[in-house]
Amino acid sequence: MVGKLRWSMTVRIEQVDVGLYKVPLSHTMKDSTHGDMSDFELITVRIIDSDGAQGLGYTYGVRAGGAGIWALIDRYLRDVLVGEDADRIEFLWQRMWWCLHYAGRGGPVTSAISAVDIALWDLFGRRASQPLWKIFGGYDPVVPIYAGGIDLGLSTEELLAQSDRFQSEGFRAIKMKVGRPDSREDVARVEAMREHLGDTFPLMADANMRWSADKAIKMARSLQPFDLLWLEEPVIPDDFEGQARVVRDGGIPIAAGENWHTVYEFSRAISMGAVTFVEPDVCNVGGYTVFNKIAAIAEAHNLPLTSHGVHDLTVHSLAAAPTRTYMEAHGFAMGDYMDEAMPIGDGFVTAPDRPGHGIDFDFDLLEPHRI
Amino acid sequence: MVGKLRWSMTVRIEQVDVGLYKVPLSHTMKDSTHGDMSDFELITVRIIDSDGAQGLGYTYGVRAGGAGIWALIDRYLRDVLVGEDADRIEFLWQRMWWCLHYAGRGGPVTSAISAVDIALWDLFGRRASQPLWKIFGGYDPVVPIYAGGIDLGLSTEELLAQSDRFQSEGFRAIKMKVGRPDSREDVARVEAMREHLGDTFPLMADANMRWSADKAIKMARSLQPFDLLWLEEPVIPDDFEGQARVVRDGGIPIAAGENWHTVYEFSRAISMGAVTFVEPDVCNVGGYTVFNKIAAIAEAHNLPLTSHGVHDLTVHSLAAAPTRTYMEAHGFAMGDYMDEAMPIGDGFVTAPDRPGHGIDFDFDLLEPHRI
Ligand SMILES: [Mg+2]
Ligand SMILES: [Mg+2]
Repeated sequence: MVGKLRWSMTVRIEQVDVGLYKVPLSHTMKDSTHGDMSDFELITVRIIDSDGAQGLGYTYGVRAGGAGIWALIDRYLRDVLVGEDADRIEFLWQRMWWCLHYAGRGGPVTSAISAVDIALWDLFGRRASQPLWKIFGGYDPVVPIYAGGIDLGLSTEELLAQSDRFQSEGFRAIKMKVGRPDSREDVARVEAMREHLGDTFPLMADANMRWSADKAIKMARSLQPFDLLWLEEPVIPDDFEGQARVVRDGGIPIAAGENWHTVYEFSRAISMGAVTFVEPDVCNVGGYTVFNKIAAIAEAHNLPLTSHGVHDLTVHSLAAAPTRTYMEAHGFAMGDYMDEAMPIGDGFVTAPDRPGHGIDFDFDLLEPHRI
Repeated sequence: MVGKLRWSMTVRIEQVDVGLYKVPLSHTMKDSTHGDMSDFELITVRIIDSDGAQGLGYTYGVRAGGAGIWALIDRYLRDVLVGEDADRIEFLWQRMWWCLHYAGRGGPVTSAISAVDIALWDLFGRRASQPLWKIFGGYDPVVPIYAGGIDLGLSTEELLAQSDRFQSEGFRAIKMKVGRPDSREDVARVEAMREHLGDTFPLMADANMRWSADKAIKMARSLQPFDLLWLEEPVIPDDFEGQARVVRDGGIPIAAGENWHTVYEFSRAISMGAVTFVEPDVCNVGGYTVFNKIAAIAEAHNLPLTSHGVHDLTVHSLAAAPTRTYMEAHGFAMGDYMDEAMPIGDGFVTAPDRPGHGIDFDFDLLEPHRI
């Protein structure tokens, strides 16, 4: 009876804490578009309800933008949330979207909403004492994972050594960067990796939007002999028509999504045939609420689902999705700041059975990097 | 010889000042989506070069988002700009776009870039001692203007009285809001306005994204007898396919653009037949640099060009565009805070011959509203 009453009670959001950090990377990373990266921005959200229960969400910035995300949550989203029923996540999502709509429809706004949405789902999972992957439908907690090297600056020798390191860490699939000014180097590097890894090892390549559609088609055809699982982001994310041509004429599956911010952009790309491996980032698209809708659209089009970054969060959505394929392990070592990093066993990770998403930051470790 | 040397010199950006204000409106305004508005956010940018010359730019927020825009300029864009050649505006635009790309591709990022881009063009115009409309090509400085009522909350009596006031102020074209919960009230209000204004008076109606595509087609057909010049934003800006149906099946020209943030979104909408009157906002799309590209795309598709808000800035782009039609007078009384408000003479305004865009804020008047 007490239990029943407890469940019928409305739990109000009482507090929304936001933090902004500039977190150093252990070594400089490089891709074809963002240049040298030596740190990343981390934006954390903690939501506390009227029972004192807590949910944690976060999002991140590549090079820049985090301060804008922080300001949007701190100044506007908090007012939308405090005092509201924490369980009506879709309702709160819509309120956040429309509160910031004129300045919004994408960009830092969807990142800000993501951090909050993830915290709300975490709070709900913790109160229900269930992991999110089960709340989302519970397909299979064991998810294949790959290592994404941010390695355009490495020599071929260093690249191969990195792939050995990845394998010793338990990875059984690897993605490398392409998009060097001299494209012959891209082809030679992929060839060296294929030779080093063997014929059947799953290998992907990521161009980070560097090419025109025509250049991308030419590159895809040059890379065909090396049997890539996918070629990622060959063109800018705004060029749906161009990327559809690459899918049609390049002869290699195309992954994309880390730079699309809305369910509308994914829906458009998918219905235009501009993507094969659908790759949303739960920290960019508006949190789990939107990631799971994108998963459903991809499934309805019979397209494999992958993900960008933040695997500690994303594993719950992929563990719930029957069409999931390899999940990206986050390129920045965020696990260094987490209470429990996810163990990788022979190419797979297992979604945790801890309530919510089951991760927490060690905020004492983060404190020196607070902005 | 001295003059020649002066022009070959590179002028460096030395200082970027950003301000954020919450400016009260003299009366509460209402549309179908944003509810009651009693103030707006203003973000100002002043760029000072190594000669001490200055350029002013600004953008604004509807209800929320301004603090995010402010943070993006203050924390990131300043670093992209200071020390750079002030005359290479397109180069600086690309650097700003890519600096904030991962968090960006729209939302507050394009508003932040807009404010800077407008300041850069103003600086260039002042140094060249030329008004922007001439720098942009100088088609015709006399531009038709209309009053956009933000008047969904007014009674029909108040609505008609407002239209009398607009006419006494010199306006010869008026836009009203639609999108009430009971659509019969929309039809009755448009009918009352048409009767009051006479058969040939240019009248537009703005639904602020309130309807589904099917509802919008039904409403467009109901409004056909009242000969609207255009129906504005019948559906959400993400629903290109739906709005193309409204254009095709509604029987009234469709205006849209205030909620599109990139040249790509305008290009897509135009090529899909989802818009008739193209309505960019120079403060949302990335400044004059992008507004003028959108104008060219609209012209190439033989579509009339209008604009959203900030007429003091936009008049320069419309004065340069051969396909321009009625320009919207900004709904918020920003002119109250400007040194020289633009006089309206019998339905027209004239782009000023002062260098740059030719406006400046009275920052002493704004000071009490600084955040
Ligand atoms: Mg990638
Ligand atoms: Mg409008």
